[in-house]
Amino acid sequence: MDTRPIGVFDTGLGGLTAVRVLRRILPEEDLIYFGDTARVPYGGRSRETLLKYARQDLRFLRSFDLKAVLIACGTVSTTSLDVLQAENDLPVIGVVEPACRRALAVTKNRRVGMIATLASVRSGAYEAALRRLDPGVEVLGHPCPLFVPLVENGRVHPGDVVIETVAREYLEPLLEWGCDTLILGCTHYPLLEEILAGICGPGVTLVSAGEECAFELKRLLSAQGLRAPEDRRGTAEFYVSDQAEDFEEAASLFLAEDIHHMARRIDIDQY
Amino acid sequence: MDTRPIGVFDTGLGGLTAVRVLRRILPEEDLIYFGDTARVPYGGRSRETLLKYARQDLRFLRSFDLKAVLIACGTVSTTSLDVLQAENDLPVIGVVEPACRRALAVTKNRRVGMIATLASVRSGAYEAALRRLDPGVEVLGHPCPLFVPLVENGRVHPGDVVIETVAREYLEPLLEWGCDTLILGCTHYPLLEEILAGICGPGVTLVSAGEECAFELKRLLSAQGLRAPEDRRGTAEFYVSDQAEDFEEAASLFLAEDIHHMARRIDIDQY
Repeated sequence: MDTRPIGVFDTGLGGLTAVRVLRRILPEEDLIYFGDTARVPYGGRSRETLLKYARQDLRFLRSFDLKAVLIACGTVSTTSLDVLQAENDLPVIGVVEPACRRALAVTKNRRVGMIATLASVRSGAYEAALRRLDPGVEVLGHPCPLFVPLVENGRVHPGDVVIETVAREYLEPLLEWGCDTLILGCTHYPLLEEILAGICGPGVTLVSAGEECAFELKRLLSAQGLRAPEDRRGTAEFYVSDQAEDFEEAASLFLAEDIHHMARRIDIDQY
Repeated sequence: MDTRPIGVFDTGLGGLTAVRVLRRILPEEDLIYFGDTARVPYGGRSRETLLKYARQDLRFLRSFDLKAVLIACGTVSTTSLDVLQAENDLPVIGVVEPACRRALAVTKNRRVGMIATLASVRSGAYEAALRRLDPGVEVLGHPCPLFVPLVENGRVHPGDVVIETVAREYLEPLLEWGCDTLILGCTHYPLLEEILAGICGPGVTLVSAGEECAFELKRLLSAQGLRAPEDRRGTAEFYVSDQAEDFEEAASLFLAEDIHHMARRIDIDQY
């Protein structure tokens, strides 16, 4: 039994996908969420800049006495996870491996597509993890640089010609190639699930990296005896690096939970 | 006569609009350009974060012995210019006032529209400057948060349903309101000039904040005796805060000039 909180990191709203699932499957756990809203988006940045940012983000989260950290950011997971794990003496899990395990469990033709930010696709992390788990699998990744700004601007509704056109362009090469499973390798993308499913049709199973990592975290806490007692009710604290009000507004919609006046702003450059 | 360089700042590619004009109208001047590509976009950030970033950006530029600074970034110009001017003992000019002067010179019905980032529209800086110059002018501003990511992803071509749809949505309230002059209050927007002109029609004159500030700078240098001798050929140096290659690629297209292997990367957090 361990009632210390779990740290969850993302750049903005995307990681709340994982928080939503964690609140459902681990309601007894305390969560400390940090969204680096002053420096979002990470997806187009270089590996070196990403590592610098990720180290600061972890240092802030570790100013709390945590039992585990969930990197609910595809870009940091694909570019910096190994370094963060080596530098920290607590479990640090990312979104890549859980999503890859799930994708391999559901694929029948062993052609797995992956969409993510440019930095994540460039990193080759999903391909490497999939091939390590199943050397015979075929993988095709495609960057979707406009999805994060479109999602952050609320363009998530089926029938919107803007998001539909961009999504169709991004998915076309993957569908022509013939994947039967598509990893949503960025935690913002579950907000586009209805649109993506509509374009892919029933022959393609979508796997959400933002959701699978929450299930992985639950397994890990159970295996290591780190779960909190089930009769308690967990809390959630939210920290951001830019104006709290803008985040609260969007996050309340995202979580379907009112978090107004609950987010606190911190200066990430101090870490 | 003064051959010290001019510092030019923007967050990414937008300020190159001003550089392009400066190279044409002041070919004898040396330019030091800094693009804060590690922290682009600025447009959705809070005033406090913007001021912190802007101070760092100026400190870096002033590590060179400059004669003047051009803030070729709409967001910093609208939120932080007065503070930067007060803190620096050299001419610091922004994009707001030159664009407003030009807009007032061309408007006939004295209804001026303005499009910019969310931070710039929230600041009210264009309205304030226009009313200071002409108390009777009517002004309507509209934020266009998706324009910067769309431009940075190359969606600038007429006929592209994505940029055309977004642009039509953003411009509709301004056109219904009946402006005859439209200020492009963000230095990225001149890349959308053909699309915006197509939607606005011949009854609306577009005024580019990124171009007008270059003419203003020329006037200021002449008035203060700070021009370089006309028989010399000016140089341009480019600095960025993230990977130089990505910037060089886009900037070469943007400037219609090959700047491959010419940009250098600096660590802006050191300033």
